[in-house]
Amino acid sequence: MQYLFPPSLTNLINQLVRLPGIGPKSAQRLAFHLLRAKEEDAGGLARAILEARSKVRRCSVCGNLSDGETCAVCADESRDAELLCVVEEARDVISMERMRGFGGYYHVLHGAISPMEGIGPERLTIGPLMERLKEGRVKEVVMATNPNVEGETTSLYLAKLIKPLGVRVTRIAHGVPVGGDLEYADEATLAFAFSGRKEI
Amino acid sequence: MQYLFPPSLTNLINQLVRLPGIGPKSAQRLAFHLLRAKEEDAGGLARAILEARSKVRRCSVCGNLSDGETCAVCADESRDAELLCVVEEARDVISMERMRGFGGYYHVLHGAISPMEGIGPERLTIGPLMERLKEGRVKEVVMATNPNVEGETTSLYLAKLIKPLGVRVTRIAHGVPVGGDLEYADEATLAFAFSGRKEI
Repeated sequence: MQYLFPPSLTNLINQLVRLPGIGPKSAQRLAFHLLRAKEEDAGGLARAILEARSKVRRCSVCGNLSDGETCAVCADESRDAELLCVVEEARDVISMERMRGFGGYYHVLHGAISPMEGIGPERLTIGPLMERLKEGRVKEVVMATNPNVEGETTSLYLAKLIKPLGVRVTRIAHGVPVGGDLEYADEATLAFAFSGRKEI
Repeated sequence: MQYLFPPSLTNLINQLVRLPGIGPKSAQRLAFHLLRAKEEDAGGLARAILEARSKVRRCSVCGNLSDGETCAVCADESRDAELLCVVEEARDVISMERMRGFGGYYHVLHGAISPMEGIGPERLTIGPLMERLKEGRVKEVVMATNPNVEGETTSLYLAKLIKPLGVRVTRIAHGVPVGGDLEYADEATLAFAFSGRKEI
């Protein structure tokens, strides 16, 4: 169908179609836009992709995304070292920070326990989490995993591991809609969930 | 709002937000996708952007997009050299080709006359078009500019220029779209459809 586009343009359209949520029509529109756009926009995007991929790595402390050895949250010494919030993904850190009600640190698991998908606890950053807790400064761990089966399972699994260390383990309240995704929760809902957290 | 993303990721998100039809949420989702994607997908997209921008240029004959000196249509000598279809944009060539009913060549104007936007005939590729017609092989020019004010203006303007050369100038028909509903056709379209009625 696109046999009359020059090969390099066809290739660009094919690459764009692979992106999530981009159909053939959108891909064509984006490709024409990128061809006509200013160099700083089109070349800038290309360079931004390559740069982000080469620079972004996991924070050595919490697993959050970072351009350097430690992320901006872990580098902030003014935070409350007694509070640790456990989330599934790096984007959940951003969601929690947007709420502005949490002043502690984070730990990013990079997933959740999911027997259905064959993801066991060993695939998550649970080892480093336990190491941090054994340092003894954290008094409370807030489980902010997603309010779905995998998130709840992970939360309960971790609670069992952590409680013997004498650390309080809490779970954000079900103000967040069950079956939802933390990424799409609005600030107010997240604030409710956070203030209504309960002992598990 | 995104102050906790590493700078290179924030930059990628900001670049993606500039694309047409991509909002902040989509940009974030695309950025995370690009970070996690295989190298051939993410790096491939970056390289495809740069390559398309460096390679794609206008066909020296018709103005269609091309990777080389002449485009695939102009390079095809089996086409009917007596028929020339005039379109506004390179993507219109693809639309016409998809129809599979046209076997001649094209000329891409790269725009349409628009006094409102300050686009005069001198901004279009009318000079090269007249040069092609003066070669004398073209017997009919089909105006396939858009069916709006700018397209009609351009079409009439060109007809006046071309007719003195003894070349037949035609305009694609206006009417109700196939598969459409009469109820939703506007008055102008219906008037065109009515005056252009044919014996059955």
